[in-house]
Amino acid sequence: MTSKHDSIALGEGREFDAIRQIIDRLGVRARGVGDDAAVLDVPRGDRLVASVDTSVEDVHFRRAWLTPREIGRRAAVAALSDLAAMGAAPLGVLVALEVPDAWLEALTDVAAGIGDAAEEVGSHVVGGNMARAPTFSITTTVLGHCFAPLRRSAVRPGDRLYVTGRLGGPDLAIDAWHAGRMPDAEARARFAAPVPRLREARWLAAAGATAAIDVSDGLVADLGHLARASGVRIEVDAERVPRHPGADAVRAMRGGEEYEIVVGAPAPLDVVAFRARFGVELTEVACAAEGPPGVEVRDAGRRVAPPSGHDHFSG
Amino acid sequence: MTSKHDSIALGEGREFDAIRQIIDRLGVRARGVGDDAAVLDVPRGDRLVASVDTSVEDVHFRRAWLTPREIGRRAAVAALSDLAAMGAAPLGVLVALEVPDAWLEALTDVAAGIGDAAEEVGSHVVGGNMARAPTFSITTTVLGHCFAPLRRSAVRPGDRLYVTGRLGGPDLAIDAWHAGRMPDAEARARFAAPVPRLREARWLAAAGATAAIDVSDGLVADLGHLARASGVRIEVDAERVPRHPGADAVRAMRGGEEYEIVVGAPAPLDVVAFRARFGVELTEVACAAEGPPGVEVRDAGRRVAPPSGHDHFSG
Repeated sequence: MTSKHDSIALGEGREFDAIRQIIDRLGVRARGVGDDAAVLDVPRGDRLVASVDTSVEDVHFRRAWLTPREIGRRAAVAALSDLAAMGAAPLGVLVALEVPDAWLEALTDVAAGIGDAAEEVGSHVVGGNMARAPTFSITTTVLGHCFAPLRRSAVRPGDRLYVTGRLGGPDLAIDAWHAGRMPDAEARARFAAPVPRLREARWLAAAGATAAIDVSDGLVADLGHLARASGVRIEVDAERVPRHPGADAVRAMRGGEEYEIVVGAPAPLDVVAFRARFGVELTEVACAAEGPPGVEVRDAGRRVAPPSGHDHFSG
Repeated sequence: MTSKHDSIALGEGREFDAIRQIIDRLGVRARGVGDDAAVLDVPRGDRLVASVDTSVEDVHFRRAWLTPREIGRRAAVAALSDLAAMGAAPLGVLVALEVPDAWLEALTDVAAGIGDAAEEVGSHVVGGNMARAPTFSITTTVLGHCFAPLRRSAVRPGDRLYVTGRLGGPDLAIDAWHAGRMPDAEARARFAAPVPRLREARWLAAAGATAAIDVSDGLVADLGHLARASGVRIEVDAERVPRHPGADAVRAMRGGEEYEIVVGAPAPLDVVAFRARFGVELTEVACAAEGPPGVEVRDAGRRVAPPSGHDHFSG
């Protein structure tokens, strides 16, 4: 973890101190930092998988809603979720922080949360960068490996589409906060402490899933990404969409920031075995067909207008 | 290149449009974007090298000083320079943009600059993320590979230290801008269009260099990083430090943002062959000795106080 630039307000000394404190706080969850770059080994025969994701204060989270540790963990989970969507195993996490003065004290807690996320999936923070900036943001790069990546473009007509978990919880929490209420604990946890479905995705790939995406924009919106990438029509059965307690079907189909994953598979997947293995539901929610690429939502067998993607922060 | 979140001001449609325009503008310089993550192959036997770097408007650059294309290229070069410091060859570049409204129109030019940097080193933009934010920033993750990375910690007593290029140009340019003058063209180019020394570093590693760092904080400051990581004393000869025309020794030793590299080698390197090969100078500027880790600057044989690291934006 290196500081490459000085800064107006922090001063070089203070910035270096902050980086040192972060490394200390990460402890064994940081590995190999201190050089210009991280050095990692991709298992022989596997391919490298890499993704980057940014969380910006007041765009992707609000400080009043979450603890600094939750903010750090959640930012890293959002990026790790992209590895899950590829069916990859994690290799390491790089963190780029943009830090205004007001966040300097909370920084080691944020770092601890990022370390939590890495540790939970059996990985490490392997590098980073800190820059002074007027707005707080966390950009997480995740590196992983796998033999045969799951792809957005691999859905074929006739495939079944499954989603992990239950949807709508993060959306419920955000609505409560916007209305000035505290969300109930379960909904809050779905927003504040999502779980990247890395092991689940690898299990599903081994069980025959060929396509995947993570639910970050909202189920219907993300199915739309799959449909367009694969050139297929995807028909969602609204009644089947698994709902977080208190969430209706529209909320479950529209709410984003879920970090559950959707997979496509040519043959039925064993939802009972999946639930027994992970304690998480796996639900068949849609099927793919020939037709103009896009998503069709059916409720009680009738076609209805698809709900638009989530739109939390403009609400 | 995916957009994982919607935004207050851009709106999802406008954000997706911006990403599409970026991908169009990158053309063949983008590769494999469109999935949740990039998939890359590390040559068998080589190790993966990864680093991340952020450039923030008004912290690392000012819009009045550079064109959007220069800003994009320079941000990517700063990150690629970390691969050079490891002696790695590039595999791919991931870009995370934080974009306020005022930058939306310039975005494809910024992206073109990032694509330029990738193309110049024989690589590609392989993924990215765009988030709405109040401040413009570019976070570049660079992925590379090599068999035996150069390390900050590999300097041994008796090693010679060499630097590529001539130092002080970027600092001259910044001083001119701060004084309300236009810098001369050569100094401006050193700031606006630095060159990552990737091929040079691999040549130097093959020629026997074992340690390296890039000059981003300033020569003496970066030699200090090498000295502390290696547990050696580094003695710099101020008279030998190669100076950009118009830069004095203090400026050449203190100025940052050079993106030249320093290497340590146990045996003399062929500076004539290096210059013939790359058209860039290679100069022996320091040697390593036993002693308390740190840097000592000597001028005409006498020990002088080392200049502190660069401090552009507080000046």
